Amino acid sequence: MSPRNDALPERAQRPIGIGMVGYAFMGRAHSHAWHTVSRAFGDVPLKPRLAAICGRDPAATAEAAGRLGWAAVETDWRALIERDDVQLVDISAPGDLHAPIAIAALGAGKHVLCEKPLANTLDEAEAMAKAASDAYARTGARAMVGFNYRRVPAVALARKYVAEGRIGTLRHLRAVYLQDWLADPKAPMTWRMSAERAGSGALGDLGSHIVDLARYLTGEEIVVTSAALETFTRERPYPGGSGTGTVTVDDSALFAGRLSESGALASFEATRCATGHKNDLTIEINGSAGSLVFNLERLNELALLDLTDGGACGFRRVLVTEPEHPYISAWWPPGHVLGWEHTFIHQARDLLTAIADGTQPEPSFSDGLEAQRVLAAVQEHGAGTGATIRSA
Amino acid sequence: MSPRNDALPERAQRPIGIGMVGYAFMGRAHSHAWHTVSRAFGDVPLKPRLAAICGRDPAATAEAAGRLGWAAVETDWRALIERDDVQLVDISAPGDLHAPIAIAALGAGKHVLCEKPLANTLDEAEAMAKAASDAYARTGARAMVGFNYRRVPAVALARKYVAEGRIGTLRHLRAVYLQDWLADPKAPMTWRMSAERAGSGALGDLGSHIVDLARYLTGEEIVVTSAALETFTRERPYPGGSGTGTVTVDDSALFAGRLSESGALASFEATRCATGHKNDLTIEINGSAGSLVFNLERLNELALLDLTDGGACGFRRVLVTEPEHPYISAWWPPGHVLGWEHTFIHQARDLLTAIADGTQPEPSFSDGLEAQRVLAAVQEHGAGTGATIRSA
Amino acid sequence: MSPRNDALPERAQRPIGIGMVGYAFMGRAHSHAWHTVSRAFGDVPLKPRLAAICGRDPAATAEAAGRLGWAAVETDWRALIERDDVQLVDISAPGDLHAPIAIAALGAGKHVLCEKPLANTLDEAEAMAKAASDAYARTGARAMVGFNYRRVPAVALARKYVAEGRIGTLRHLRAVYLQDWLADPKAPMTWRMSAERAGSGALGDLGSHIVDLARYLTGEEIVVTSAALETFTRERPYPGGSGTGTVTVDDSALFAGRLSESGALASFEATRCATGHKNDLTIEINGSAGSLVFNLERLNELALLDLTDGGACGFRRVLVTEPEHPYISAWWPPGHVLGWEHTFIHQARDLLTAIADGTQPEPSFSDGLEAQRVLAAVQEHGAGTGATIRSA
Amino acid sequence: MSPRNDALPERAQRPIGIGMVGYAFMGRAHSHAWHTVSRAFGDVPLKPRLAAICGRDPAATAEAAGRLGWAAVETDWRALIERDDVQLVDISAPGDLHAPIAIAALGAGKHVLCEKPLANTLDEAEAMAKAASDAYARTGARAMVGFNYRRVPAVALARKYVAEGRIGTLRHLRAVYLQDWLADPKAPMTWRMSAERAGSGALGDLGSHIVDLARYLTGEEIVVTSAALETFTRERPYPGGSGTGTVTVDDSALFAGRLSESGALASFEATRCATGHKNDLTIEINGSAGSLVFNLERLNELALLDLTDGGACGFRRVLVTEPEHPYISAWWPPGHVLGWEHTFIHQARDLLTAIADGTQPEPSFSDGLEAQRVLAAVQEHGAGTGATIRSA
Repeated sequence: MSPRNDALPERAQRPIGIGMVGYAFMGRAHSHAWHTVSRAFGDVPLKPRLAAICGRDPAATAEAAGRLGWAAVETDWRALIERDDVQLVDISAPGDLHAPIAIAALGAGKHVLCEKPLANTLDEAEAMAKAASDAYARTGARAMVGFNYRRVPAVALARKYVAEGRIGTLRHLRAVYLQDWLADPKAPMTWRMSAERAGSGALGDLGSHIVDLARYLTGEEIVVTSAALETFTRERPYPGGSGTGTVTVDDSALFAGRLSESGALASFEATRCATGHKNDLTIEINGSAGSLVFNLERLNELALLDLTDGGACGFRRVLVTEPEHPYISAWWPPGHVLGWEHTFIHQARDLLTAIADGTQPEPSFSDGLEAQRVLAAVQEHGAGTGATIRSA
Repeated sequence: MSPRNDALPERAQRPIGIGMVGYAFMGRAHSHAWHTVSRAFGDVPLKPRLAAICGRDPAATAEAAGRLGWAAVETDWRALIERDDVQLVDISAPGDLHAPIAIAALGAGKHVLCEKPLANTLDEAEAMAKAASDAYARTGARAMVGFNYRRVPAVALARKYVAEGRIGTLRHLRAVYLQDWLADPKAPMTWRMSAERAGSGALGDLGSHIVDLARYLTGEEIVVTSAALETFTRERPYPGGSGTGTVTVDDSALFAGRLSESGALASFEATRCATGHKNDLTIEINGSAGSLVFNLERLNELALLDLTDGGACGFRRVLVTEPEHPYISAWWPPGHVLGWEHTFIHQARDLLTAIADGTQPEPSFSDGLEAQRVLAAVQEHGAGTGATIRSA
Repeated sequence: MSPRNDALPERAQRPIGIGMVGYAFMGRAHSHAWHTVSRAFGDVPLKPRLAAICGRDPAATAEAAGRLGWAAVETDWRALIERDDVQLVDISAPGDLHAPIAIAALGAGKHVLCEKPLANTLDEAEAMAKAASDAYARTGARAMVGFNYRRVPAVALARKYVAEGRIGTLRHLRAVYLQDWLADPKAPMTWRMSAERAGSGALGDLGSHIVDLARYLTGEEIVVTSAALETFTRERPYPGGSGTGTVTVDDSALFAGRLSESGALASFEATRCATGHKNDLTIEINGSAGSLVFNLERLNELALLDLTDGGACGFRRVLVTEPEHPYISAWWPPGHVLGWEHTFIHQARDLLTAIADGTQPEPSFSDGLEAQRVLAAVQEHGAGTGATIRSA
Repeated sequence: MSPRNDALPERAQRPIGIGMVGYAFMGRAHSHAWHTVSRAFGDVPLKPRLAAICGRDPAATAEAAGRLGWAAVETDWRALIERDDVQLVDISAPGDLHAPIAIAALGAGKHVLCEKPLANTLDEAEAMAKAASDAYARTGARAMVGFNYRRVPAVALARKYVAEGRIGTLRHLRAVYLQDWLADPKAPMTWRMSAERAGSGALGDLGSHIVDLARYLTGEEIVVTSAALETFTRERPYPGGSGTGTVTVDDSALFAGRLSESGALASFEATRCATGHKNDLTIEINGSAGSLVFNLERLNELALLDLTDGGACGFRRVLVTEPEHPYISAWWPPGHVLGWEHTFIHQARDLLTAIADGTQPEPSFSDGLEAQRVLAAVQEHGAGTGATIRSA
């Protein structure tokens, strides 16, 4: 391997107490980030203390606390918020809990990290953004929404290139987020297929990520002009074999629009039924002077097309693992690749740094609200499209 | 290399006289196909005789005749049609000439191969389809539209897999045809940017290909539900520096819809402004049991995902150069790749075989008409979209 | 994302005290693994306690202890070994320290994890293997050499396929490990370019990895038949500008041989001068029934060729992130990729499990010795090749 | 597609009579080239006339003449050489016929194109090179050896980059030519597995190509330092089921050496047993300032690494289909890819141009001889290696 001498500037790290709601998939990923961030980034001024984890099931929550390394257990999120040893509330619970918890926590002067999408409805999102704004003015509390893919080094590098004008005026953006775990009609019914709990299906879960990335990468808003939603499988068996439940969210969402400043044509597709694609978020931007392509399954790479390369022009596979690339100086030598979970560590680092420095972390709840506006527009445009054309 | 014993069945080859209108890019590709088809495919019952080539400029046409190997020159397509030594009229001229030439040739009992898209307007396409149907009934004349990409071996293999049900029920189709030769605002004005000559821009030139491939691969019709058209550069310099002309066609077309039987969600994008993409036609189909991906820049390959591969599942890069693959037995040993121009040779082979066997070649003018209906629907949905949102 | 219900079987985790020598690149990676392993793998019976870290420079070691989360500091590795709170000695120091530390630690009844390659010389390696064998018999102490790439899930899956006979009789193996950080003649002189400290250059650092992987994947020994060594840059500047030092190790090693059982032809290349390759370990095995390819820069993927796929045969890109794939059930849903550092976590898990279960961890010091025999054979075959042919 | 205005400079084309020996795989490829070259390249001063084809079996040769478009048939190559209408003798026959035919044809003042490798033995190759040199001095006859892969546009572009110094001082070259048609032990015995007819196996058939490309791309000679040869299957069934024949050539050849000027380390592997590889010639060169990679299965692409790209450095996938790229102006618009057979058309163009212009075509018989020296050195180094180590 190649040696590195990254003498990280050391600052004293003050503790900050974290209280987390939720202990499933996202809870595990967040726990790992809180444990790791201070060791990876010596320059983070705050050192997380994993104070308490909260879930409704006492036994399961206690088990999770032990496994994931949390000091205490709560079964009521209101109690969690009130704890003196919690300064930051991390909301990794289903979407219907985002608004009440976040608003309460902000009201109590606590910082908030809320998983994406911000909310299940536009109304909730607006209330949350207002709560964040009010809290910031009143108590200085910070609020951030967890669009973690902004923190992939290759994505942050792409953002830098677009902002510097390296690919020129934007013309096209195409983004897909393809998974396939619902391609099988026998895949079981969970809260993620319930509109009441999850708000929407692929649209909110996957579509929100590509909407946020499009906004982040281009610095523009998305004007939705058309959308179609589809639910290929409308009844699914409950886990354990006790009958079936009705799927009330979309399996797939296909939508298109424009970028607000450049007028670039933008297309989006989010689906849980693209056989063979496990976690394939691919976003491409074509500008007048170049192009960029990112793929989450190969997240250490960024494809760059630079027209000034002339006759030797071609997409470059940039391995985004150099010390000068975003976030990389904290990690390993060139070519020693990072994984998906690192995005949460980077997110924790940026949030903690913003809190310590008194700056507004991004993506803010306002960013979350803008993404929610796009999702709402898709649902409006796509209303009814799931049944009108399908023959079967 | 690996030896092959492809004992081609030999049949006596009767001559068939070809008359071609046009001698530019397409004319060169067609000429090569007519010259080569009989040597490559020993089983083709008809052997083309390149009787006459037709163009308006006598000197340029004569030069082309010499270079491309045609026996005679005509400057009026009506005269070409009337020649006794011409049994098949090959229309490689701009779109506004397709209808008059094809209808006249069919009326004269000549077979017709017409470049794509079939026509500049839906009315023309309908008239042509009717002329083809009438001629077939009256004289047995055959008419084919030149969607040559059906003849890429990998595409034909993909069609076979879909038809056999190998990828199951169709859920998603996404197709793009990306080029970049108009990304530069200084690229010169030609007939291809004139609505009068070309009908449309990227939509007809590129979009028609992906529309036809979607129909061919799935065996379904496309129901358009939304579309946006854009012209990024509205004035272009004439070649030679004599002022500028107004671009009256689209640079880019983005549209979406459904497949008529499966209800699969389908998205399409055709553009001449996708920097870094030279001839990137990529089409992917996701079904309940598998997926297929084809890319024209790597046209010897087909990516296949077969869910029955279980824990070792992953997209296979099938090199479509095996003797049992479509068209390949006429060519080289495995791995000795074909090029873009081979599609025209395969097209010629299938057309000549259909003529000799008395069967209807595909894609027929009816296929061309169905594609035209999709293009017309896109233009209708997309009307006005090129100016409403763009800020600049 | 796709939900998972991997109810990890819980076992009570007893503490085990770790003492680590070294705090640079490898020290950081190992620290992360010791911190993370118990949270990731709930089934590991031992929970590491990061007792003490050892380095010669007191201030730097103390800084590292704070940053990397170690409870105490030692500046003499002998003292570290003697600590009662240390049951496992982790040797992440330069190669010349491996033998003395490992032999002393084993002699003191401590378990040992030693970074690769096992030693700087064959004599040292033999002494270490004997020490490990003696200690195991006498005290039950375990010894493992840190060929961490055996713990890439895709590599472990490949091993399984070979062992099951899925690719048939082995015919060819080709392995390269390409880096480029010494392509620049101005890259500074460090201990890694000193034969006294490092034993060898690319050969030991990179070549040892591909030698071990070849042994692991095939289950066979390597018989070296030819080798060439080269040092392209023989003088390098010291960091800080104080003159130059003489490079006494190889920049590149190229060697070939046979596998001991199958007789397969095997080729190996390790270099620090392959411009554009950052950490490109690529290994391919061709058997009579299939092939496998692994690439460390895309370590979540395994390419599998299975001849039984017939006419749709082609290398499959298997994304090795499914719950049934090795190590994956501890992590994230399909397609949520792992990084380079996970190999150390998996290594820690397997070592701790072996210690708890009383089994011999692999790769053992005997494995390390076998790899060292190959390196020694390469140095013997390659002796003098670095100067005889080069013209400059 | 994108329009092109490649106004080819027209020169009057004088006829040149071709006489070809052989009508199998290579004969078909050469026939296609002779038929096509003048239409593709308007600037070629000579226009091939396919005068006569020669084979031992009168019926089969006559059939081939009809199918491949040759005017006459000969069954004795001596008669072919003597024909007044033959000015260029094209030798596409097995290797044991290369020397006698080429020497006789050159003696008769005919130009010669001889398939690769130049000969079965070094003695033959030396005699042929001398005959070519003598003939050139005496009659001006030209001789060329058919290393057609020099004429892949991407290869010619790579040669240009190396020659311009774009990748700096050469450090590493690695070349493989992998096929798999003999992986199956039941693949039938043919002349290609007979040392008497073919000289060698994978070494001469495939290895000669990578040896020539290494010489061409680098402009240096290859000094072989080690080699191993292997025949995995020593008895094969005759086609038709009449017993088995003994394979007297290598299935695989693995060799290594140095480049004569730069001292770069070079490795080579040629095999017919690399399962899943159909026609995978891959060659990579690493220099101090950049790298190049070419792969014959994706022959329209060249991967270029240019260190001056700095932090956005990465292998570029250059699609070698631009008008300014070698040979491309004769063909299609950017991205409209070429196939394997085009190399023969380009070869024909360069040979005919050299004949017309009175220059020496490359690769000359001297080039063929240098490649043969490398093959001979491999056979010498590799003598006996096929049996000494294999266990089975």
